Amino acid sequence: MKKISPIILKGTRDFLPQEMAKRLYVMDRIRKIFEKFGYDTIETPIICPAETILGKYGDEGDKLTYSFNDNGDRRIALPYDLTVPFARLVAANWRYIPMPFKRYQIQRVWGAEKPQKGRLREFYQCDIDIIGTKSLIAETEIAKVITEVFNSLGFKNITIRINSRRLLNTVLKAFSIPEEKNIDIIRQIDKLDKIGEENVIFGIEKLGIKEGKEILKLLKPEKTNSETFEKLEQYDLSELKEFFKYCEELDIPEEMIKFDPSLARGLDYYTGITYEVMSKDLDFGALCAGGRYDNLCGLFCDENFSGVGVAFGFERIMMGMETLNLLPAIATNSKVLVSIFDKNCISESFKIYNQLLDAGINSEICLDPGNLSKQFKYADRKKILFVVILGPDEINEGKVMVKSMLTGKQKDIPIEQLSKYFNGYLTN
Amino acid sequence: MKKISPIILKGTRDFLPQEMAKRLYVMDRIRKIFEKFGYDTIETPIICPAETILGKYGDEGDKLTYSFNDNGDRRIALPYDLTVPFARLVAANWRYIPMPFKRYQIQRVWGAEKPQKGRLREFYQCDIDIIGTKSLIAETEIAKVITEVFNSLGFKNITIRINSRRLLNTVLKAFSIPEEKNIDIIRQIDKLDKIGEENVIFGIEKLGIKEGKEILKLLKPEKTNSETFEKLEQYDLSELKEFFKYCEELDIPEEMIKFDPSLARGLDYYTGITYEVMSKDLDFGALCAGGRYDNLCGLFCDENFSGVGVAFGFERIMMGMETLNLLPAIATNSKVLVSIFDKNCISESFKIYNQLLDAGINSEICLDPGNLSKQFKYADRKKILFVVILGPDEINEGKVMVKSMLTGKQKDIPIEQLSKYFNGYLTN
Repeated sequence: MKKISPIILKGTRDFLPQEMAKRLYVMDRIRKIFEKFGYDTIETPIICPAETILGKYGDEGDKLTYSFNDNGDRRIALPYDLTVPFARLVAANWRYIPMPFKRYQIQRVWGAEKPQKGRLREFYQCDIDIIGTKSLIAETEIAKVITEVFNSLGFKNITIRINSRRLLNTVLKAFSIPEEKNIDIIRQIDKLDKIGEENVIFGIEKLGIKEGKEILKLLKPEKTNSETFEKLEQYDLSELKEFFKYCEELDIPEEMIKFDPSLARGLDYYTGITYEVMSKDLDFGALCAGGRYDNLCGLFCDENFSGVGVAFGFERIMMGMETLNLLPAIATNSKVLVSIFDKNCISESFKIYNQLLDAGINSEICLDPGNLSKQFKYADRKKILFVVILGPDEINEGKVMVKSMLTGKQKDIPIEQLSKYFNGYLTN
Repeated sequence: MKKISPIILKGTRDFLPQEMAKRLYVMDRIRKIFEKFGYDTIETPIICPAETILGKYGDEGDKLTYSFNDNGDRRIALPYDLTVPFARLVAANWRYIPMPFKRYQIQRVWGAEKPQKGRLREFYQCDIDIIGTKSLIAETEIAKVITEVFNSLGFKNITIRINSRRLLNTVLKAFSIPEEKNIDIIRQIDKLDKIGEENVIFGIEKLGIKEGKEILKLLKPEKTNSETFEKLEQYDLSELKEFFKYCEELDIPEEMIKFDPSLARGLDYYTGITYEVMSKDLDFGALCAGGRYDNLCGLFCDENFSGVGVAFGFERIMMGMETLNLLPAIATNSKVLVSIFDKNCISESFKIYNQLLDAGINSEICLDPGNLSKQFKYADRKKILFVVILGPDEINEGKVMVKSMLTGKQKDIPIEQLSKYFNGYLTN
C-alpha cells in the first residue's frame, strides 16, 4: 500500500508530551494570574466569516490573514489575533455581559505570511482586555497584571515601555503635520528598533515630511522617566502623569516601567496609552504589547465601548524561557508503575492498582506482563518515580516490593499499607 | 460608517464566561482522570495537508471533512477526529516516544456536513489512546478510565456496550458471507439503534445477503452477559472472555459493562474490542466510543503499531450534564471587589488591593471610582463574594468595611488585618 507522508504544514507544529508539559505549565501560570485579577474567559470560533476578521482592512487584510473559500463558497478567515473576535463577541452580546467586562482568552491564531524562522503560521496568543470603561485605573491594572505574569514565570529585568497615542498625535500636530498622515508616520516610527534612526527619518521624508529628525529627537526617551517628562513638558502630559502616579501607588516597581515617547505601535485603532514589554536579557522583540482603543466594537455595532488590552506572545515567551532557562523540569503525570511479574500474577497486580486508584494516586498498570527489565525501562523513560513489584514470593508473603527509580533503593511494604505509604507524598 | 454584522458561522459558537466556566469545569475533570491513569497530552495542528486527514478515504472523505484550497493553492483539511492526527504524529515520531504510548488530546475538530440541531461544524473531542501493545490489559484500562470519567462527572446509569470486531467477522464468515462485504454489513448493523431492525435487514438484503434476519437474531444481546456468552458459545469468545475477566478484576462494576454482539461501530479500521458508552437516563446516542485498531499508522509508515482508544464526545457530555442537572454552580474567579469611594480615595483603595494581591487572593479593584451602588451591582452580577468599602471615615479610623454580598452583612476590620481575615477562606 502506498504510504501517505506524515507531514505537517510549514509554520505549524506537533507537540510531543515533553514539550506540551512545558507549554501547559506556562499557560497555566499565565491563566492563574489572569484569574487572580478577576478576568473571566471566553471562546470564539476558529472558522469565521472573513468580513468579521478582516474588518475594515478588507482586501489588504486578506494578504495578512489566513483565508479561503470553503466548499459552500463562503469566504472564511481564521483569526489573526484575539482582539477582533473579542470586539465582535462584545458587539453581539454586550446586553448579557456585566460591564466593565474583563476577559482573558488563550487560543491559537493564524498568520498568512510565508512562514520562516520565528514566524509561524499557527501559534498561540494570551490576551486580556477590559472593555466598557475609560478610567485610567484600567490601564494601571493591565500594567500590574503584566508585572505579575512575568514575575510568576520567573523573568527578571522586564521593562514595560509606555507611551500615549494621544501624546504622539499632539506632538505631530505641533510640527504642523496634517492629521491624516499621522498613522503613516507612526508606522515609520514603529520600525525604529528594527531599521534604525536613519531609515526611519528617510521613511518619514518619503511621506513628504521634512522634520523626521527633529521629531525623533524629541521623542527619544531620556535616562529617567522624570527627565523624559521634563523634556516634553510643553505638551499635555496629564494622562501619562496620572497613569504613572497610579502605577506607583499600585506598587509597580519604578524600574519596570519606562516612559518612551518613541513607542509607536503600528495599529491604527489605538487612542491612548500603549504598552510594549521587553526583556533586557533577550535580544528579540516585544513579549507582550497592546493599548487603549476607543471604538473597536464600532466596526460591528453602534454602541461605543472604550477598551484597553494587551496580547502576550505565547511563543516568544516560551522561546524566552528556554533561552533564559526558566522552565523547570516537569514531571510526567504518573508517579507509580504497578508491574506485572507474569501472566499468572495479573489479578494480584490489578488488586494493587485498584488500591492506588482508589487512593487517588496517579499511577499506571503494566500493559505487557513479564519482562520486568522492559517495565523498568518504560518507567525510566517516562520518569515514573516508583515501580511496585510483586512476584509469586511477594504474593505468598502478602507484601510488595517498592523500587524508587530515583535512588534505585527497594523496600518491602505489606500490601494493605501500600496506598498509605504513598499517600501524602503522591496524591494529586 | 457601515457596520459589519457580528455574526458567526452556523455550527460554530461563541462562549461567554458563564458557559465557559462550565465547559472548563468538565474539561478539567476529564483531564484529571486521564492524567490519573498516566496519559500524557500532545497537540497537533489545526490546518493540515488534506491527504494526512482524509487518508485512504480520499474524495469520499472530502464530503465529510472541512477542506479547502488555501491562497497558496494547497489542499487543506481541518481534522474531523483526533485519531487520524494522532496516528500521523506517531508515524512521524515513534522513535522519540516511550512505547506503549498513552496519550490524551482535547481539541476542536470539524465536520463538513450541513450543521443542524445537534450537529455542529466545530466541536470538541477528548480522546485517549494506547498505542504499541496488543495486550488486552490496554482495553481493560480504557474501560476503567471510562468508568472513572463518568463517575467523576456525576453520571449514574452508564453502560459500556462491548463487542469485538473479530467476533462479528467470525459470525459473518459462519454465514458464508464473502469477507469483502463485511464492512458494508457492519455499517448496516451500526444503524440498528437509529433505523430499527426491519430497515437494517432491508439494507443487508440490498447488499445481496438474505440472512439479515438470522444474523440480527444471533447478534441480539441477552438479558445478562453470561446468557449472551452462552448463546454464542459455538464461536471463539476467548478474547471477550479474557476482557470481561480483567474488567471484573479491575473492579469495573458488572452492571456498567454489557456484552452486545450487535454493537457495530461503522469505522473499518477496528479489528478487536469496540466500545460504546450510553446513559440509560438520556435518549441520545453514544457519549463515548472507540475500539482496537491494528494498523492505523500503516497509512503513514511501515511500522505496525496496534492501538486502542476511545473518543469522549464533549458536546454530548455537556448536553447530558445540562439535561441531568449535573453541572454545579460555578463561581467567578474573583472573590473580593475593593471599591473606590471617590477620586480622593483611590490611593487608599490601591493600598488595600495591594495587600490582597500580595496575599494571593483573587480580587478586583473598582475601575470607575464613585457611585458605590454601581460597584455593588457589578459585584452582584459577577457573583463576587465580598466588597471592601473605605470612605473618608474608615480611612481616618484605619479600618475598612467588608460587606458580604451573600448575606448583606457588613463588618469593620482594621486595615492591617484584612488579608488575614480573608486568608484561608479565599486564597487560591
